[in-house]
Amino acid sequence: MLRQRGCVLWFTGLSGSGKSTLAVALEAALLGAGHAAYVLDGDNLRHGLNSDLGFAPADRRENIRRAGEVAALFADAGLLTLAAFISPYRADRDAARATVGAERFLEVFLDAPIGVCEQRDPKQLYRRARAGEIEEFTGVSAPYEPPETPALSLDTSVLDTNACVESLVTLLRQRGFVPESAPPAGRGAA
Amino acid sequence: MLRQRGCVLWFTGLSGSGKSTLAVALEAALLGAGHAAYVLDGDNLRHGLNSDLGFAPADRRENIRRAGEVAALFADAGLLTLAAFISPYRADRDAARATVGAERFLEVFLDAPIGVCEQRDPKQLYRRARAGEIEEFTGVSAPYEPPETPALSLDTSVLDTNACVESLVTLLRQRGFVPESAPPAGRGAA
Repeated sequence: MLRQRGCVLWFTGLSGSGKSTLAVALEAALLGAGHAAYVLDGDNLRHGLNSDLGFAPADRRENIRRAGEVAALFADAGLLTLAAFISPYRADRDAARATVGAERFLEVFLDAPIGVCEQRDPKQLYRRARAGEIEEFTGVSAPYEPPETPALSLDTSVLDTNACVESLVTLLRQRGFVPESAPPAGRGAA
Repeated sequence: MLRQRGCVLWFTGLSGSGKSTLAVALEAALLGAGHAAYVLDGDNLRHGLNSDLGFAPADRRENIRRAGEVAALFADAGLLTLAAFISPYRADRDAARATVGAERFLEVFLDAPIGVCEQRDPKQLYRRARAGEIEEFTGVSAPYEPPETPALSLDTSVLDTNACVESLVTLLRQRGFVPESAPPAGRGAA
């Protein structure tokens, strides 16, 4: 009915690597092409569903567990689901993949050098982490485990947002989650 | 784009009042008419997102809190969201309404007499509750607080499923969440 198959694009990468920025841009492109898409990220989960969770290790794991469960529901509903979470641990991402179903889970690694991420520092988190105000900050005082076999790896320090969006739409087409052809004229404005 | 506005139909009522049955039937009718709809109920939440929760009072409240948060995300994504939970306490349903936003939260009370629900007893829960195997079972050993001003009240002991589905589609039209007219020919099969 929606001319698409539900799936989860799981964006992982350091703070400042561009996960939410890219997810929001891709969402806009997909909506504009007549698709149903939705971004799940810290902004809408941490303030709502996961507002009872802090940042201790167990809470972080639970944050990702719930994100995976909600993403699975969205994929089940047929949506192109764009999940953007640092999700630094391979085990947590693998658990999300198992929850969603490997065949419709596409891991997207935003592979920007930490120096670039730290220079961007949109939320001033690196600054606070370096000042010791944030404990166990990924990339500074806690590890980031990169994906071993991501569906796509994008270095956002050299690729601009439009180029990344194009790569992701191509990926969705190649995997059969959206059709190869453009949507029928007028569909997007209905 | 989806020819609809996201909302939450929140089905509340005793076990056996027909919440999931009706939600699933309405979902099928809406999908058949070319809409994007999705059922959230105990079946898909208790086994996934809320698998860490039991049935103690605090866990039940948290179960409904998370259901409301997830329903809000689905409504935000533009879906006709059909949430089917006993949700016996007014305060918990009011919290869900506040989370979702009152203007897109439609409370649907399945108002079947407990005698009828107990006779149906599809999951043999009343039998087990009467035998003392389940504590604090709604309607038997725990209260059910009926909605004071539901958007719609349906007595499923006298109305069949088709009649209830028709009433709900009419409600969705009247409130402007789906258009008055039928969807364009061929849309549903696209």
